[in-house]
Amino acid sequence: MARKARKTRKQRVSTKKITTKKKTKKLVYFFGGKQTEGRAEQKDILGGKGANLAEMCRLGLPVPPGFTITAEACAAFQDLKGKWPKGLKEEVLRNIKKLENMMSAKLGDPKKTLLVSVRSGAAISMPGMMDTVLNLGLCPEVVQTLGDKMGNPRFAWDAYRRFIQMFGDVVMGVPHDNFEAILQSVKEEYGVKSDTDLDEGALHKVVKRYLKLYKKFTREDFPLDPMVQLEKAINAVFGSWNNPRAVKYRELNDIKGLLGTAVNVQTMVFGNLGETSGTGVAFTRNPATGTNKFYGEFLMNAQGEDVVAGIRTPRPIQDLAKQNPAALKELMKIRKVLEKHYKDMQDIEFTIQEGKLYMLQTRTGKRTAAAALKVAVDMVKERLITREQAVLRIDPSQLDQVLHPTFDPKSEKAAKLLTKGLPASPGAASGKVVFTAEEAEEWAAKKEKVILVRTETSPEDIGGMNAAQGILTARGGMTSHAAVVARGMGKCCVAGAGGASIDSNSGKMIIAGVKVSRGDWISLNGSTGAVYLGRINTTEPKLTGDFKTLMGWADKFRRLGVRTNADTPHDTAAAVRFGAEGIGLCRTEHMFFEGDRILAMREMILADDLEGRKKALAKLLPMQRNDFIGIFKALKGRPCTIRLLDPPLHEFLPHDKDGQQEIARIIGVNIRKVKEKVEALSEFNPMLGFRGCRLGLIYPEINTMQVRAIVEAAIKVKQSKTKVRPEIMIPLVGKAEELAIARKMVEQVIGEVFKENKIRKGSLPISIGTMIEVPRAAVTADEIAAHADFFSFGTNDLTQMGCGFSRDDAGKFLPKYVEMGIYEYDPFQSLDEGGVGRLVDIAVQQGRKTNKGLKLGICGEHGGDPRSVEFCHRVGLNYVSCSPFRVPIARLAAAQAALREKSAKKTARR
Amino acid sequence: MARKARKTRKQRVSTKKITTKKKTKKLVYFFGGKQTEGRAEQKDILGGKGANLAEMCRLGLPVPPGFTITAEACAAFQDLKGKWPKGLKEEVLRNIKKLENMMSAKLGDPKKTLLVSVRSGAAISMPGMMDTVLNLGLCPEVVQTLGDKMGNPRFAWDAYRRFIQMFGDVVMGVPHDNFEAILQSVKEEYGVKSDTDLDEGALHKVVKRYLKLYKKFTREDFPLDPMVQLEKAINAVFGSWNNPRAVKYRELNDIKGLLGTAVNVQTMVFGNLGETSGTGVAFTRNPATGTNKFYGEFLMNAQGEDVVAGIRTPRPIQDLAKQNPAALKELMKIRKVLEKHYKDMQDIEFTIQEGKLYMLQTRTGKRTAAAALKVAVDMVKERLITREQAVLRIDPSQLDQVLHPTFDPKSEKAAKLLTKGLPASPGAASGKVVFTAEEAEEWAAKKEKVILVRTETSPEDIGGMNAAQGILTARGGMTSHAAVVARGMGKCCVAGAGGASIDSNSGKMIIAGVKVSRGDWISLNGSTGAVYLGRINTTEPKLTGDFKTLMGWADKFRRLGVRTNADTPHDTAAAVRFGAEGIGLCRTEHMFFEGDRILAMREMILADDLEGRKKALAKLLPMQRNDFIGIFKALKGRPCTIRLLDPPLHEFLPHDKDGQQEIARIIGVNIRKVKEKVEALSEFNPMLGFRGCRLGLIYPEINTMQVRAIVEAAIKVKQSKTKVRPEIMIPLVGKAEELAIARKMVEQVIGEVFKENKIRKGSLPISIGTMIEVPRAAVTADEIAAHADFFSFGTNDLTQMGCGFSRDDAGKFLPKYVEMGIYEYDPFQSLDEGGVGRLVDIAVQQGRKTNKGLKLGICGEHGGDPRSVEFCHRVGLNYVSCSPFRVPIARLAAAQAALREKSAKKTARR
Repeated sequence: MARKARKTRKQRVSTKKITTKKKTKKLVYFFGGKQTEGRAEQKDILGGKGANLAEMCRLGLPVPPGFTITAEACAAFQDLKGKWPKGLKEEVLRNIKKLENMMSAKLGDPKKTLLVSVRSGAAISMPGMMDTVLNLGLCPEVVQTLGDKMGNPRFAWDAYRRFIQMFGDVVMGVPHDNFEAILQSVKEEYGVKSDTDLDEGALHKVVKRYLKLYKKFTREDFPLDPMVQLEKAINAVFGSWNNPRAVKYRELNDIKGLLGTAVNVQTMVFGNLGETSGTGVAFTRNPATGTNKFYGEFLMNAQGEDVVAGIRTPRPIQDLAKQNPAALKELMKIRKVLEKHYKDMQDIEFTIQEGKLYMLQTRTGKRTAAAALKVAVDMVKERLITREQAVLRIDPSQLDQVLHPTFDPKSEKAAKLLTKGLPASPGAASGKVVFTAEEAEEWAAKKEKVILVRTETSPEDIGGMNAAQGILTARGGMTSHAAVVARGMGKCCVAGAGGASIDSNSGKMIIAGVKVSRGDWISLNGSTGAVYLGRINTTEPKLTGDFKTLMGWADKFRRLGVRTNADTPHDTAAAVRFGAEGIGLCRTEHMFFEGDRILAMREMILADDLEGRKKALAKLLPMQRNDFIGIFKALKGRPCTIRLLDPPLHEFLPHDKDGQQEIARIIGVNIRKVKEKVEALSEFNPMLGFRGCRLGLIYPEINTMQVRAIVEAAIKVKQSKTKVRPEIMIPLVGKAEELAIARKMVEQVIGEVFKENKIRKGSLPISIGTMIEVPRAAVTADEIAAHADFFSFGTNDLTQMGCGFSRDDAGKFLPKYVEMGIYEYDPFQSLDEGGVGRLVDIAVQQGRKTNKGLKLGICGEHGGDPRSVEFCHRVGLNYVSCSPFRVPIARLAAAQAALREKSAKKTARR
Repeated sequence: MARKARKTRKQRVSTKKITTKKKTKKLVYFFGGKQTEGRAEQKDILGGKGANLAEMCRLGLPVPPGFTITAEACAAFQDLKGKWPKGLKEEVLRNIKKLENMMSAKLGDPKKTLLVSVRSGAAISMPGMMDTVLNLGLCPEVVQTLGDKMGNPRFAWDAYRRFIQMFGDVVMGVPHDNFEAILQSVKEEYGVKSDTDLDEGALHKVVKRYLKLYKKFTREDFPLDPMVQLEKAINAVFGSWNNPRAVKYRELNDIKGLLGTAVNVQTMVFGNLGETSGTGVAFTRNPATGTNKFYGEFLMNAQGEDVVAGIRTPRPIQDLAKQNPAALKELMKIRKVLEKHYKDMQDIEFTIQEGKLYMLQTRTGKRTAAAALKVAVDMVKERLITREQAVLRIDPSQLDQVLHPTFDPKSEKAAKLLTKGLPASPGAASGKVVFTAEEAEEWAAKKEKVILVRTETSPEDIGGMNAAQGILTARGGMTSHAAVVARGMGKCCVAGAGGASIDSNSGKMIIAGVKVSRGDWISLNGSTGAVYLGRINTTEPKLTGDFKTLMGWADKFRRLGVRTNADTPHDTAAAVRFGAEGIGLCRTEHMFFEGDRILAMREMILADDLEGRKKALAKLLPMQRNDFIGIFKALKGRPCTIRLLDPPLHEFLPHDKDGQQEIARIIGVNIRKVKEKVEALSEFNPMLGFRGCRLGLIYPEINTMQVRAIVEAAIKVKQSKTKVRPEIMIPLVGKAEELAIARKMVEQVIGEVFKENKIRKGSLPISIGTMIEVPRAAVTADEIAAHADFFSFGTNDLTQMGCGFSRDDAGKFLPKYVEMGIYEYDPFQSLDEGGVGRLVDIAVQQGRKTNKGLKLGICGEHGGDPRSVEFCHRVGLNYVSCSPFRVPIARLAAAQAALREKSAKKTARR
């Protein structure tokens, strides 16, 4: 399904130009009762908000009527550099007329005033990223008569005040703070604390000063004509699609291929018409835990923005029973209707105007990974969805969240609790306190772990939130900006820690009487809301309950095996716990960098002759053997692909004078010799240099030592009654002859060690294969396969050589390439299916042609990338291999790939 | 034909193992009159010498009978580490018996003695590289009665003396010089000058001392049993296959895939039986010029080695008319028979024993390129061969010889002539005098041009001869070692410059009274034999006469176009003279390195912003435009593929402090800035870095300048009524989108310049294409071809990325790889058909699939390599492009490829 959606999106991109040229396209869709034109499926053009408003109308829910200007209109607006496409004006006017007729009210008509909100809404939700204007249609004349009519002049003036402020800020760029300063000064003049305490007279004064500020800043009068207001507001929403924070949000969240934002123009309803009015947001289930319980917050006498912005702390939805039990009851009914209709957890917005409930939004609720798992598993139990749907519903990359470590319970108990806030996004994090997003990014760039502490976060803080380990806010609720964004990011977040008083200027905060300065360590438990002083140890996540249930289903659906890349017994054990079915890549060189080993390695490289090299290698042999024993034991009989030495030898030598002096002293050679060797080994293009199987072919003694270590370890472990399945992998093969010769050498050593240990050949099978990472190998895989028991695609290097990108250097152009759309994704993150993928495909076809039993896997970092896993499934690999942490992600992605394939086949059959 | 032969050779390699295991194979072939078993086609197993001895027997020519032990037996001998394969002993004995019967003589029988020679002979001639033993079968008893019987005891003792010396030296490794010292001392004792002046008594003394020396050195007595002598001699010949100079010769001459050497055991005939005996070598035509005139030399009363070694200066073959007119007449007849039979010029050896002529060898004669051209063209006129055969007969890589410059006639006339030797190998060379092969190699490694001066050369000098510009010897004739080897190498050589007295120890020689010291410049004219003091200017070769005739035929046969890689008007003009049909690769970056240009280039790179870059580029524009005007004019309407800037920018910046300081001063920036820029631009793997089209996509202003220069130049030249056909090439494209964007930019600039100059679009067509050098591009050529008018395969980079070899670093393993047989040839010299070739093939198929009119060429250095040209033909390219000098080579190779294809098709049709 998602695959289909992606395809559709792509098609859209390519037809974009044509779209803007065909000007007969419908640009505005009405919604409201039976006259509703749109539907939920039209998210691409109506945006999520618009499509769902239409859908709710169709479901008979109480939605204030309005209309949606399509994202295609927005795209045309961008193409036309800020002009409206032909026909848009007419369509907007026609829909305004329709709306006025339905509401029996008119924009700007003091007798029966229609007020509207103007909101953005793209196909993919980008909370708080784009602009909104409320109360549009107000002007002094209207305000006066409206106030009179409602018998609530104060409300009318407050609405006007809000409108000027929002319009000035959002549409015209008048600084928000200037408005706030005026409001603050009037409050002081009147000696009141809260906005709601300002009386009509005070509001008159505020409005007067606001209008003056507006004129001063914009050099024009505040528009009186509602149509002018509307046009400017629509333009502002269109324009906000490309504001820096929206662009950054899309970048961070990998949102691509959208046309733009739709614009929803909707009849205003007011939650701030006094104490019988209110507004709220809710999730049909708990978005943090997934518990099947209505979960939301509301504020009486407030507009929606008050809740979302987290300025006042709202009350739990259940408390609505006291204020308006009928509305709560209706909401509970709507909750059921929506879940039954959408078959998923919904995130809704509502407003109560003088006791009457209005639905302003519904959308699929964002949730933590834990919640996603629970909701999916519960909905299967509730027979709302199937197991297949449940598995398909979890975003594999979000799984990271439940895999993150939590605090070690003992350490947490012992830690100094500062305060408890809201458990806004689960997980545990320790870090040094910083008070601004910039600091967070700077410190993180220096590899510092930081906790971003803010009174409240705003969209400008996105970068800093991303850089931080966790986020702590003093204000705001579970649906505040900080909470929503953190959950989306899978970051630990504690929100609304009211006890904290923050002074970001001086770099200090006081919590529960304790002063915490910039740079001090604190720890957050995002699952409980606890804030601790100091650093707390973490423990590995427990992979049980819903996780286990869902992954169990996934494992049944998937065809691809999932292995791990691990070089130590510790990582191996962790990966096995995560469900790894073996090791797909054990990089032996990592074993050479510790302590004595690097010395022996350097001695080997610096040796003058074969004898010298053999002497040094003899020192490495027992260490390598022990490593393999540990790894084989941790694998408990699972297969283990071990790659022989791969990196160029110069990587093991010190390049600085001190290091060279030290090694010269320890080994007892002249420093000149060390220097000479370093120079002799240095390379112009190490990526294409003397490495991989080339090393073992020129210096067979290296291979001999490594193979001996592997085989001796295997025999040892086998003798302790643990099964072993070693697979020896020859790296960087480009030509069949390389593998043929290397294989012969390896087989000879195996034979020797078997003989020494009196092992019968068949009793301990050791397969021998190669990495396919050189393009030449991919296109001659038929020849290479004749000498290989398995191929493992080294897609990192295959990308480097296939695309001609040095990973270390590509930073100079690759990000720009992605920006320019030359590559859809960074090919080092998601496998470049169209190019490197073709090489893989060729190798698979060719390899299986000459060797039907050839086992195929991938061990590049792409093995843990969901998109790439789907490719690996499609192309017919046997397994993917990735870092331990990504194993569950790969398992889930593999299952989804299998399910999508099944459904595509079904569709094709129809 | 050659193609077929190569294939056969390959098959042989792969079946080698099997061959040595199947022990029923015939290992010895008899030759002699009607009992002859072998034939000319069996060179692979009988060697060239053995096969042709058999063939001559079949032609009824007078050949002393004998037998040939196959190269397969030699291979088995190597495999068995010096043991004879099963059955060989029996076969040798059987053939000895047969020979004894035919000759009515017996090995070791004093009454009727059979003496034999034992000579090596591989499938491909390796003159002087392997061992020979003459007079085998002699022992004191035999010598005595033989001498008595012949009435010439002195001859018998001299033969014995020679046998001990040769056997001792060749078979047992007794130093040659020790024997010579004994001979010299006896000559002094007897007060004689020449060997032939030693009487029987003196020879007795020599033999006695020789036998003592032999025993002292070998710690065993000289063998008396002829069968023991024979076995040891055969082993020595087998073993000589792998002696260092034979291995080096094969390496230098790219001789591969042979099994080993055959061994010819042949009845001795004696050229040293007095003044009615003699020996000689001859070519059926002149091997230096190709003139259809019998060409040879002989020495009376001498053995063959005396002629070849160049110790005595022989007399021209025509002088034989005085000594033995019948023999000369018979030789002239044989010359005709052989040329008619072999349809090629033959190189023969003969001996006259007491007036009777014996043929000892015939083989295809080595010749200079000029001779090869003349012989081929003449033989067509003589209706011996067809034009196709003539074209197929010239080795394209040998053409280099006739393309080499000769002395400028004026300068040569003005130069100081020292002496005249024999014009042993044509061409002209100037260099500093060195007196040993080691010196020659050392100096050449330091980029010194040297002339190797030797009294006579020997096989040990091969390396030095290869390193030298030319060779001068004081002794030896046209068929001496120096002459034969130099012609094979295409080196200029003057031999037998008798006026020269050389003292290599003191590093001096005196020619015609002039002292020439080590390091002094001399010049050689290999076509006249002139030796000059000092350095002489050279002129370009004239490409007329036979060359023109044959190349004219070649051009009619070939399908592939041939272009050149040239960046200057001068090179372009030269290439056009060589027959280039356009430029396949004009590297614009080469234009940026001279004088002011590099400054402007550096200014561009160091600029802070677009404006700065544009300012610097504006300085480069007129210079680039002028370059293109010159090139377009030199091309006279031929197409010109111009590649936009390709190398990484850091290549243009100075990397040393002085250079950085200078540029900082000139441009007026701080040196720190220069340093920072150099550091910022430095790359880990520049080959895979920020270069090629990536530059122009990130800095479009560079492309804009270059395209403007091209188009403005084209308009200028077109306006001067010269046709222009510019083709703009975007380098390093890996993905269709890159080309699509770059093409759009280029088209925009073309449009602008056309508009400015009021040029109608159709009146000056400019095609736009790309280089295929990134593996990704090759496998996605279908997508890329949609945006390209042409592809040019950049096989240098395609090899680097395809095989994962950095050309700059591969020296650490690639030579070893070729040695190990992993690669048959250095893939940077001959296109790796099996791997990189597959990528090319894929790209050709895919590219033509989406773009039927796609023009395809190759512009890597492989474009001038005959083997690679054949591949390009086969794979269906439109043209190859190579350096100007290699254009004729490519033309000929292309013709041969076409002819071979035709004949293969014919064969297939049968």
